[in-house]
Amino acid sequence: MVVLVDSCGNDEIQHKIHVFQSLGLKVYIVPTSKGPVITLMGNDCIDISNISLVSRTVQHVQLKVPYVLASKIIKDTPTVITLPNGVSIGSGALVVMAGPCSVESQKQIDDAARAVKNAGAQILRGGAFKPRTSPYAFHGLGIEGLRMMRKAADREGLAIVTEVLDPEDIPIACEYADILQIGTRNCQNFSLLRKVGKTGKPILLKRGMMNTIEEFLMAAEYILSEGNMNVILCERGIRTFETETRNTLDISAIPVLKSKTHLPVIVDPSHAAGNWKLIEPLALAAVAAGADGLLIEVHPTPDTALCDGMQSLRPDKFELLMKKINRIASAMALH
Amino acid sequence: MVVLVDSCGNDEIQHKIHVFQSLGLKVYIVPTSKGPVITLMGNDCIDISNISLVSRTVQHVQLKVPYVLASKIIKDTPTVITLPNGVSIGSGALVVMAGPCSVESQKQIDDAARAVKNAGAQILRGGAFKPRTSPYAFHGLGIEGLRMMRKAADREGLAIVTEVLDPEDIPIACEYADILQIGTRNCQNFSLLRKVGKTGKPILLKRGMMNTIEEFLMAAEYILSEGNMNVILCERGIRTFETETRNTLDISAIPVLKSKTHLPVIVDPSHAAGNWKLIEPLALAAVAAGADGLLIEVHPTPDTALCDGMQSLRPDKFELLMKKINRIASAMALH
Amino acid sequence: MVVLVDSCGNDEIQHKIHVFQSLGLKVYIVPTSKGPVITLMGNDCIDISNISLVSRTVQHVQLKVPYVLASKIIKDTPTVITLPNGVSIGSGALVVMAGPCSVESQKQIDDAARAVKNAGAQILRGGAFKPRTSPYAFHGLGIEGLRMMRKAADREGLAIVTEVLDPEDIPIACEYADILQIGTRNCQNFSLLRKVGKTGKPILLKRGMMNTIEEFLMAAEYILSEGNMNVILCERGIRTFETETRNTLDISAIPVLKSKTHLPVIVDPSHAAGNWKLIEPLALAAVAAGADGLLIEVHPTPDTALCDGMQSLRPDKFELLMKKINRIASAMALH
Amino acid sequence: MVVLVDSCGNDEIQHKIHVFQSLGLKVYIVPTSKGPVITLMGNDCIDISNISLVSRTVQHVQLKVPYVLASKIIKDTPTVITLPNGVSIGSGALVVMAGPCSVESQKQIDDAARAVKNAGAQILRGGAFKPRTSPYAFHGLGIEGLRMMRKAADREGLAIVTEVLDPEDIPIACEYADILQIGTRNCQNFSLLRKVGKTGKPILLKRGMMNTIEEFLMAAEYILSEGNMNVILCERGIRTFETETRNTLDISAIPVLKSKTHLPVIVDPSHAAGNWKLIEPLALAAVAAGADGLLIEVHPTPDTALCDGMQSLRPDKFELLMKKINRIASAMALH
Repeated sequence: MVVLVDSCGNDEIQHKIHVFQSLGLKVYIVPTSKGPVITLMGNDCIDISNISLVSRTVQHVQLKVPYVLASKIIKDTPTVITLPNGVSIGSGALVVMAGPCSVESQKQIDDAARAVKNAGAQILRGGAFKPRTSPYAFHGLGIEGLRMMRKAADREGLAIVTEVLDPEDIPIACEYADILQIGTRNCQNFSLLRKVGKTGKPILLKRGMMNTIEEFLMAAEYILSEGNMNVILCERGIRTFETETRNTLDISAIPVLKSKTHLPVIVDPSHAAGNWKLIEPLALAAVAAGADGLLIEVHPTPDTALCDGMQSLRPDKFELLMKKINRIASAMALH
Repeated sequence: MVVLVDSCGNDEIQHKIHVFQSLGLKVYIVPTSKGPVITLMGNDCIDISNISLVSRTVQHVQLKVPYVLASKIIKDTPTVITLPNGVSIGSGALVVMAGPCSVESQKQIDDAARAVKNAGAQILRGGAFKPRTSPYAFHGLGIEGLRMMRKAADREGLAIVTEVLDPEDIPIACEYADILQIGTRNCQNFSLLRKVGKTGKPILLKRGMMNTIEEFLMAAEYILSEGNMNVILCERGIRTFETETRNTLDISAIPVLKSKTHLPVIVDPSHAAGNWKLIEPLALAAVAAGADGLLIEVHPTPDTALCDGMQSLRPDKFELLMKKINRIASAMALH
Repeated sequence: MVVLVDSCGNDEIQHKIHVFQSLGLKVYIVPTSKGPVITLMGNDCIDISNISLVSRTVQHVQLKVPYVLASKIIKDTPTVITLPNGVSIGSGALVVMAGPCSVESQKQIDDAARAVKNAGAQILRGGAFKPRTSPYAFHGLGIEGLRMMRKAADREGLAIVTEVLDPEDIPIACEYADILQIGTRNCQNFSLLRKVGKTGKPILLKRGMMNTIEEFLMAAEYILSEGNMNVILCERGIRTFETETRNTLDISAIPVLKSKTHLPVIVDPSHAAGNWKLIEPLALAAVAAGADGLLIEVHPTPDTALCDGMQSLRPDKFELLMKKINRIASAMALH
Repeated sequence: MVVLVDSCGNDEIQHKIHVFQSLGLKVYIVPTSKGPVITLMGNDCIDISNISLVSRTVQHVQLKVPYVLASKIIKDTPTVITLPNGVSIGSGALVVMAGPCSVESQKQIDDAARAVKNAGAQILRGGAFKPRTSPYAFHGLGIEGLRMMRKAADREGLAIVTEVLDPEDIPIACEYADILQIGTRNCQNFSLLRKVGKTGKPILLKRGMMNTIEEFLMAAEYILSEGNMNVILCERGIRTFETETRNTLDISAIPVLKSKTHLPVIVDPSHAAGNWKLIEPLALAAVAAGADGLLIEVHPTPDTALCDGMQSLRPDKFELLMKKINRIASAMALH
């Protein structure tokens, strides 16, 4: 594989894309602070002299990693993703996504939305389509759940993130949600990755609990290679021999990812720990380690939650946590 | 969840199914050596006295595991899956599936089919749709590959197993293949599991490289719960800290699975080791540990393979291996 | 095993110990804020009525964990360990131990001591006896190294922590060091644990890279059961499938340990990551997660270090890190 | 490090050793089928021309691995270890070591010895010094246990393998046992490895449950580098996320070790599985994968065992297992 980059003004782009494609190259436009960068990929036998005729600024890039568009070599400025409600992820300001595991009723999601908004979160999380280990468990309210969540979010001015499992659910999820989530078990569901890539929507990609950091970035590359640069990476714990926590939060993944990619990195302490008592220390640690955001399970009444109640915070505890999070975020901002 | 079983003659089945369903129960028919067993699932508030009116033979079953249809409690005889070419999996006789990682050309798959047939294998494996870590890698020949494989298999009287990744490819794969394979990265792709479940085709389900044995059985349960009892479980290595092998073959999984489920269990030493030199000892170990079959990568010319050449056996080495496998299988048959 | 506790004044202790021992019980004195607590262990057939004659305050304690003296049930106030230079570990104020992997020369350790002191650390670390994977690698300067380290530390008013590997080295290490370190590979070297327990010296016990949190606490119990309550637990990364870091820092271990034991918990980000670039985010994360201290490799000239140069910070970088650590520690103190 | 080998007749050895040592080189004598090979190690600045004066047959060896004496480059014939009772390990014939976890009484060990002898085992295993996770558990009968075991073994013509934990116990263990065992938790207890190395006794080294194969061979190298070539490697399961078995038997370690070292490799299915029901399939798999021997827990009355009863076989089951083992071993011998 040959990788070439070409930086140029907006005017020339359409023309160049056309010519490069006619030379048999795959063309990706990567937005950077210095304007769009055209990334070209092809096989070894491409005649580079032909390409030089099209552009004198084209450069051959040697990659030490198997991913291209996710790498800092192609784009060395952080990717900032701005949502319809004006919230930006990756801009330097910490973003908090919070809400229940599943949408259960209009009242439940309304209460959750109000609570997370009041505490200072900017994005409402909630599941309408739930992946469950058992085929007999509660699998979510589906489209009805999406509608309830949208209503609750709009009232509070929150954006929405929700998971998609089945390719068939992508269109309806796109209609109601601002960010589509790919769950840990689907991190290497390449067919689903391509399909959410094509939507152009911001994608929150959870690290597979079994995936190395390199595989995680390769999974992101699947989405990016569909022309969708709006990918948010989420560390949520990996599988180890330790049984005190559900999974082991790989806190080192935050700085390692930050050193390799321009994509924003957030952390989900709720699923990593599987225990609400550990959310606070893990959330604070994630902020101190440089995360761009957090994904936290908050439920108005955890004891009656249809799933993951054990790992959900009550609104009052979440409010207190947000105060502590802000203190650490402020201390980090002084560095 | 309440689980009840009802054994009855074939004649009564349709009537009973109808009545149980009208009571709000999910009904599954599990074939056993003593005739069909009706398995009923419902929530706690089902009135069991109503059910007793329908059948006096109904029994309440207490489960210690979260899976039902995969468990030995429901069905204590081994499930035997018979393919159109007459080969049976799970019958006590060792079954060998062999062939290349990907179908690359008609000649390549013809050569592979002849070689594996001559050495004594009964099923041809080969990928038409390939899951690859990189979006830029070779992803298989698709439907063209399926056609080539069918042609090669038919000439040799072999059955076919091939992987499906995308729900959209299921119908075409069903048309050409005898067994659909779900790969390790899709072991918890619940949406795909349900869809292959609905086809009724035999399904070869590979263990997720980071899935516990219980999660593996729960993944099988997704397929079974669609009414498809033809599931073959495949141990193919799990992820550990050891780096000498690509994954660590969990040889204990064979007897552990055998103690918990009636489904046949096969082993893939090629993907576990990632190195052809290890295939022989791992294949022999799998047979000695009680596996019902093996899935082995064989390529006419591994050096030029488009993928996984490093872990593929040459035909001559495979023939020698089959002799050794048969010796161990014969020794096991004496026990 | 029967576990009983008896709180009493200092005067009665000697008498009671004597009587309890004569009843065949093992007796441990655990210092708490409410005065010493006598912990008694025996087998089931002890006649509790006999014990009641000795003390009316004795209580039977039901343990849900296999460790006794390390548990919060026996002692619910944090254990504070005070060193000869006046520094306390576990008191609420963050303690930093820093220095080179190995003592290499008087100048090297002098430079290191000055640098870590100036940056604000309170304890000098440095190896005189080094565990090395290879029998042919540098194994430390031995007693000569201890002398150099003591000289350097005394000049700066620092305490000393150093590792012991061989039971034969314990007496000499006790002479020169303030804290004895048990390395990750010896976490379950029960013979060594008992022997350092008998010294009464503060022991820094590193978690085995393969040990669960429960096994880690059981290892501490070996030291405590020799009557030595001065144990500092150190999380330093566990072994997982991820290869970007040498080990995976188990950040959750901090709050989990804090919930189970009264012993202080520190973190070693240097060995966890195996890369100096990751020390800062991991150190800050550890403080935010509630660690009582940090153990950081600092070398005056990492490029020429005889071991672990890759994971050692230069003095200037360490000074900068200490400023950031203090900012996070201050933010934590506001909670 | 420079590594040189020099093959020569027995007569010249003493002279050469003396000269090489005077040049500042470490000298190891490795016995091979072609006579002794002198292995020399030194640092880079050794003047090789000086060495050539001593021997014209000396060769410089390039190593791709960090171990020397354990590697096949130095010695490409299998190491065969012969015990006082005439049994050889590594000779091609399968060797079985069996017996209880701990020696509990003369009668218990007598019964065990008779049972394992009658079933065809050649070596009696049994613990006198037991490593236990808890300081309060049964730690073995010590020297009394050794005496009982020797008596029982001698009556049956069995050799003895027993574990040492504490350097202080080495002399007494050497007096009574034929093979000293280093347990999984001490695999990287380098101080203990050196000390058992100095005894010259055959050493059974168990793989650390979290050690890579390379680290395992480096641990063996510690023993070999003390001049003791009698090391038996024992795979006994590694730590993974799977919880159905106590550890995951790494069956691939057998062929991987066999490809890298001349040392014999045996397998302990009892500790790997932690469940007697799994011993049979794992033992048969180990033989089929090429193991030189097995280490199996057998107890006359598992229900009353002081430790590990759950994973011990009853004599009748062990006898049946030995028949099956022999069938697989015979099938393997035909290859």
